[in-house]
Amino acid sequence: MCKLILVRHGESVWNKENRFTGWTDVDLSEKGEQEARRAGELIRKHDLLFDVAFSSVLKRAIRTLHLLEESADRMWVPEIHNWRLNERHYGALQGLNKAETAKKYGEEQVHIWRRSFDVTPPLLEPDDPRGAVYEDKYKNVDPAVLPLGESLALTITRVIPFWQDYIAPCLISGNTVLVVAHGNSLRALIKYLDGISDEDIVGLEIPTGVPQVYELDAQLRPKKRYYLK
Amino acid sequence: MCKLILVRHGESVWNKENRFTGWTDVDLSEKGEQEARRAGELIRKHDLLFDVAFSSVLKRAIRTLHLLEESADRMWVPEIHNWRLNERHYGALQGLNKAETAKKYGEEQVHIWRRSFDVTPPLLEPDDPRGAVYEDKYKNVDPAVLPLGESLALTITRVIPFWQDYIAPCLISGNTVLVVAHGNSLRALIKYLDGISDEDIVGLEIPTGVPQVYELDAQLRPKKRYYLK
Repeated sequence: MCKLILVRHGESVWNKENRFTGWTDVDLSEKGEQEARRAGELIRKHDLLFDVAFSSVLKRAIRTLHLLEESADRMWVPEIHNWRLNERHYGALQGLNKAETAKKYGEEQVHIWRRSFDVTPPLLEPDDPRGAVYEDKYKNVDPAVLPLGESLALTITRVIPFWQDYIAPCLISGNTVLVVAHGNSLRALIKYLDGISDEDIVGLEIPTGVPQVYELDAQLRPKKRYYLK
Repeated sequence: MCKLILVRHGESVWNKENRFTGWTDVDLSEKGEQEARRAGELIRKHDLLFDVAFSSVLKRAIRTLHLLEESADRMWVPEIHNWRLNERHYGALQGLNKAETAKKYGEEQVHIWRRSFDVTPPLLEPDDPRGAVYEDKYKNVDPAVLPLGESLALTITRVIPFWQDYIAPCLISGNTVLVVAHGNSLRALIKYLDGISDEDIVGLEIPTGVPQVYELDAQLRPKKRYYLK
């Protein structure tokens, strides 16, 4: 049996400002930093000695990981950052205030963009300077796979290969694995692990900064799942 | 041509208390945190876009790296922690105050332990609970290579294989490489790069938290070296 710990990053400055964030690389708020430290304390209290840690390449996840590691006193564990664990890309909506967007496009349209399974938001133009292709941090990624906007369905298709190729092998080797990621990249993992339907996964809410533990058997089937408290 | 950036971790709480530290996993002092952030600002100012970062597994180096990455806005770069970049192991002296040790063993003996090339300090007993073999962070390391005390000469013999196997290949591929380590593991690298004699390397002082840049040719021969300011 092996253990997987999932943590959604702490509150970011744009969560607080109610703006669409996606791949925009905003930092944690002060509350988010506290949530991250608290997550590390809980992991330490429950003696969950994680052997390896994965995160996205977005700083709100990496800073959550670092603060968590500090309070869990496990800074030395190997850590791997990968774009496949990034938040869903919110396309041309990134940076817009959610309430203002609702005024402009209507509540219903915004609800569809936010909560449908396979509807893609308005895409960024390929030459939009906000595009990932212009960021140094994606310079070693095949430009063809860098999105201009994603539905949850598309997010899942790029998260799962990373699970299969990197996270699952670590678990199969018996390691306790920590994953610090985002609302939608975690939905992707949880849908895959728990076999949740397309309809139900969109409504699954994951609290920020609260470690969720999965106990998995040798075939990586979940036997138990619980939030730490 | 490629670039290597060497950074000695910021001041630790034991630097401040004048105690032998070695592999003891003490944290940065507040001054050390400031030095780390300042190092990141300098790296950013000089537009040194490091592609990969290496550190020891000791938290004063890892926290220096993390704070540096935050102020350089490069948290996403791959980071590798390895015990081979650890500080020289100070054996049974670890934890002792340097002034008290001088009173007990004599100034001259302490000077020999601190500044000779190949004199090993008094070793830890194999069953001493301070031994690395009892620490979770070394559980995947062959116990036979975990030291009970090291001279600078011994430190060099375990640092250089890591240079050869991990750091040098990254540089040869054209990456800008950051290494955050310790006084003696950095002496090991600098001795190797600059061909410094056994006599001279012991006297080389490396300031904490000041990035030193090496510009290397395709054979990794240093062409230029300078501290950032």
